[in-house]
Amino acid sequence: MITKLSQIVEEARRQGRKRLAVAYGNDAHTLKAVYEAYREGLVEPTVFGDKAEVLRICQAEGIDPTVFAVVDEKSDVRCVSMAVSLVASGGADVLMKGLVSTDKYMRGILNKEAGLFPPKGTLSHVSVVEMPGREKLLCIADVAVIPLPDFKQKTVLIKYLSSIASSLGIEKPKIACIAPSEQVLPSVVSSTEAAILAKMGDRGQLGNVTVDGPLSLDVALYREAALEKKVQGSAVAGDADCLLFPNIESGNVFFKSATHFGGAEIAAIVVGTKVPCVLTSRGDTPQTKLYSIALACLQSK
Amino acid sequence: MITKLSQIVEEARRQGRKRLAVAYGNDAHTLKAVYEAYREGLVEPTVFGDKAEVLRICQAEGIDPTVFAVVDEKSDVRCVSMAVSLVASGGADVLMKGLVSTDKYMRGILNKEAGLFPPKGTLSHVSVVEMPGREKLLCIADVAVIPLPDFKQKTVLIKYLSSIASSLGIEKPKIACIAPSEQVLPSVVSSTEAAILAKMGDRGQLGNVTVDGPLSLDVALYREAALEKKVQGSAVAGDADCLLFPNIESGNVFFKSATHFGGAEIAAIVVGTKVPCVLTSRGDTPQTKLYSIALACLQSK
Repeated sequence: MITKLSQIVEEARRQGRKRLAVAYGNDAHTLKAVYEAYREGLVEPTVFGDKAEVLRICQAEGIDPTVFAVVDEKSDVRCVSMAVSLVASGGADVLMKGLVSTDKYMRGILNKEAGLFPPKGTLSHVSVVEMPGREKLLCIADVAVIPLPDFKQKTVLIKYLSSIASSLGIEKPKIACIAPSEQVLPSVVSSTEAAILAKMGDRGQLGNVTVDGPLSLDVALYREAALEKKVQGSAVAGDADCLLFPNIESGNVFFKSATHFGGAEIAAIVVGTKVPCVLTSRGDTPQTKLYSIALACLQSK
Repeated sequence: MITKLSQIVEEARRQGRKRLAVAYGNDAHTLKAVYEAYREGLVEPTVFGDKAEVLRICQAEGIDPTVFAVVDEKSDVRCVSMAVSLVASGGADVLMKGLVSTDKYMRGILNKEAGLFPPKGTLSHVSVVEMPGREKLLCIADVAVIPLPDFKQKTVLIKYLSSIASSLGIEKPKIACIAPSEQVLPSVVSSTEAAILAKMGDRGQLGNVTVDGPLSLDVALYREAALEKKVQGSAVAGDADCLLFPNIESGNVFFKSATHFGGAEIAAIVVGTKVPCVLTSRGDTPQTKLYSIALACLQSK
């Protein structure tokens, strides 16, 4: 079982290099991250971007440009569409965002003709969190893409969480549906839907997972809190592998809390597409960028 | 300006003892907290409860029982209703929960005949958070009472936050309306309502406060995040005194994150009632209990 983010890099390396398509890799941040992933043995990169600019950045940053296949294209939007086409057609295993805006990148991914995003699919975002003092990794969704998942989407998110947890070697992931309290509050949607999901989990309707909810954050994560609040007979309370957040605000607040004052490191990918997509941002640490590429490699079939 | 929770205790002491009515003070947790608040010079306590039991606990815990006026009553529900009547009639300044369940306590507070909760009022909960490394206190709402505040309720919560911040000596509190992003997302209610509240704040419709939103948690709290995401022209970004959460799930996740892995200390009270009400729970640290009583004293007129 993988219990540290650094082990994701090791495992991805063990599985062999994946073909990475970089959409508009026209900035030092992106190229350094891709170069690092190359040197770690994770990827064979193809960079779509302005070739002269890519070479200039490589020289300035001390990056060996011969490790990249560079496809020369000056338009960011066309770079996205070319990179998307490449992964959709099976010519690459993982997609990665470069200097292009998240908006243009996501529009490229969602473009129906491109075939990367299945019709009636559910695009989402899963993060893997390593927190100081916790003995295992935590998979969480959705902190960035779906504002307010409906019930159907929540069942899909559980599938995504479970798939990521499986790739970390967790055989039967314990999934906590987060709500304001461990008491079922009949008038609070996050609470009642958590109860329904838990019962569906009991009935085997959500796959090889153990689901419980409603659980508040502390009861999901800490055994002492579960004991103190007398949440009995729950295999998930105090020992969650995955957190399903009921809305983007609570997910995002947890993500920001964990990274800003919880000392957490993160890997994150966009899921629901034919191949995993890396969506790092400038503000991410170099570690997060590497971990995210490694997680995407691990998720690619 | 008060920048530490311990200063709330000092300021409450400076203002003189308040009359505290304790609803069903039949447990060691409650009596120790009240005794500590008495010894700090904050309160003159009246305890409603089983007198024999109260005296027994005092003896076991080394508490001087003569500091309490004990009203002998064995029923928890009647203790709540008697304590509520006392504060509602002006016979005490602050209400505090004892061994009774939160549910019964809240029902006692909300009871129309009792007159503690104004008709058409908005019952809510405000916490004051002291986080390591932050140079000032943070007031937050609502992490515990209102599941999903509607727009009108959000304006009332801003009033409550502003009132608490004022009692901490913050002249014109900076209030951040939390959302998943600092971009206005037209289809996300937390985002659009934050934008509307910000503009109402600009127009002076929310009192002597500076309101901005939508802001994500990191942009609200950290200058570096505000700079990095280029949130310009905001007096609140990176320097918030108060956080308004768009739903109980995000508020509760922040509260649990701050206390469980953020090293935060907390004071919290129920607001919207004629007098402030203390709602500590068994799990709270003795410090939190003392701080919460002190905060309620400070808020009582």
